[in-house]
Amino acid sequence: MKLAICGYGNIGRGVECAIAQNPDAELVGVFTRRDPAAVHTLTGAPVFPASSLDARAGDIDVLILCGGSATDLPAMTPQLAARCNVVDSFDTHARIPEHFANVDAAARKSGHVALISGGWDPGMFSLNRLYASAILPDGKDYTFWGRGVSQGHSDAVRRIPGVLDARQYTVPIPEALDAVRSGSMPELTTRQKHRREVYVVAAEGADRAAIERAVVTMPNYFDEYDTTVTFITAEEMRRDHAELPHGGFVFRTGKTGLNREHSHTIEYRLTLDSNPEFTAGVLVALARAVDRLAKRGETGCKTVFDVAPADLSPLSGEELRARLL
Amino acid sequence: MKLAICGYGNIGRGVECAIAQNPDAELVGVFTRRDPAAVHTLTGAPVFPASSLDARAGDIDVLILCGGSATDLPAMTPQLAARCNVVDSFDTHARIPEHFANVDAAARKSGHVALISGGWDPGMFSLNRLYASAILPDGKDYTFWGRGVSQGHSDAVRRIPGVLDARQYTVPIPEALDAVRSGSMPELTTRQKHRREVYVVAAEGADRAAIERAVVTMPNYFDEYDTTVTFITAEEMRRDHAELPHGGFVFRTGKTGLNREHSHTIEYRLTLDSNPEFTAGVLVALARAVDRLAKRGETGCKTVFDVAPADLSPLSGEELRARLL
Repeated sequence: MKLAICGYGNIGRGVECAIAQNPDAELVGVFTRRDPAAVHTLTGAPVFPASSLDARAGDIDVLILCGGSATDLPAMTPQLAARCNVVDSFDTHARIPEHFANVDAAARKSGHVALISGGWDPGMFSLNRLYASAILPDGKDYTFWGRGVSQGHSDAVRRIPGVLDARQYTVPIPEALDAVRSGSMPELTTRQKHRREVYVVAAEGADRAAIERAVVTMPNYFDEYDTTVTFITAEEMRRDHAELPHGGFVFRTGKTGLNREHSHTIEYRLTLDSNPEFTAGVLVALARAVDRLAKRGETGCKTVFDVAPADLSPLSGEELRARLL
Repeated sequence: MKLAICGYGNIGRGVECAIAQNPDAELVGVFTRRDPAAVHTLTGAPVFPASSLDARAGDIDVLILCGGSATDLPAMTPQLAARCNVVDSFDTHARIPEHFANVDAAARKSGHVALISGGWDPGMFSLNRLYASAILPDGKDYTFWGRGVSQGHSDAVRRIPGVLDARQYTVPIPEALDAVRSGSMPELTTRQKHRREVYVVAAEGADRAAIERAVVTMPNYFDEYDTTVTFITAEEMRRDHAELPHGGFVFRTGKTGLNREHSHTIEYRLTLDSNPEFTAGVLVALARAVDRLAKRGETGCKTVFDVAPADLSPLSGEELRARLL
């Protein structure tokens, strides 16, 4: 399958690397709204201006959209689904129904397949919530995130006066994980589930106490959590906090039996050195599925829920049954 | 959907309980090869002779086959797929391709849908192996089972002269789990991955040393493992070992990045108080999918790999996207 990348940030670079790991995938090139001459790809893949997409759409089986969910994808995905098959990683949970409707209308009209909200949450975590709730209808779900870098929370701290740079780690609380694993179906507050660790590079002479206060009391972002603020040097930030690790847990605990006498726990856990590279791995597997759906004549917007697992794998049905079932 | 059960052992009883937890499912009845008057169902569901299946097949959307994999299902599933839509839990991994071919031929000819090898391994564990290998193509899989009762190993011990009753627990070794979680992709021997705990009720006057020797040296079953044998009373067996807990872990660790510089671990873990009741929960969710596939006009043999996740859930696509994605 011939894949292309639209947008060349962390996820775009991750997709470029992931395509190199999949022998059945070929990278046609990277499309960018920047000056193509200023974009240097990791593998030497060609770079084209976004404006040339129309002319090259016929060479592309699936275009992987690597823009941001806040402003890029809401416009970009419907627009590009009008020209070719696409996959995106739209992750604003509350706006998924609206995004789905917009993309579905565009993809049906143009006769393409567009898969939205690929990645791990939404994505693999969502799949696990669905399978687990179908198997254990009498139960309770829990999702924990981390330990990992939250870009949104890091950005929020960077906007505080006197902050030069910041990194925020979301950390699940071990006692809460244990309580869920026990099957006791605890009710957990926001504060009981996660804590937040913030590392700040402050400007010279900045009021560190005021920065710390501004962080820990920030509404929505930090006020409902126990948060620690640690001041570090720019050198320490570069050395110790350059990576984007993440991960988390999806649990469902449920009861079965005539009198609900048996308890069960399903746990799905991700431990990721690189959030964007793992997300990219999911997107490339989903692009394979989109290519197959399109070649079977399907059209419209899809999510991970609509794709048979076999379509994500390069193996044939026969190979899958013999090796993985 | 109207479901029926064929075979009324541990899994059949589990399916009966699971159907009661799913408001969109109705239990038509239990079919048995025994004398129906001698079978008393947990919920008072009617019991019919297996011979009446032909006459009642028109009332059944999906028949859940709860026979054993060794001798029942290889004949039963193709035979019954000729009459109605079916789901089975065939779990002899090595014979799945052959079973698939037989069931597929029967189901295509009759125009029904037959899903084989539902449950957790094969089943949910297989799904996790597939998704994880599609996302992380450069990686390594590990499956661990337990802590849980293995019926096959318990039966093998029961056949030793002087043994009145026996229960075998398969136990994953914590150091092996930790080595896998570290992402170091260790090579693990059979002995390093699991140990076996055996509880035996011996006949009065039996040679306990000889029984222990017969257990720990038994080829295929125990000789490659560290096994402990504990002699207990019949009363202790009833009190402490009446349940059928099980579970296990599926891991994939893999590398990403231009120079494989990032490591990732995907872990799926089940902790089950009742192996047959959890298996039954999976079978009922799969029966829902089979009913939908059949109503869309599909035919032939399917596995968990071929079913879009949304088809396992009673929720609509719209509800799934809004609540679980």
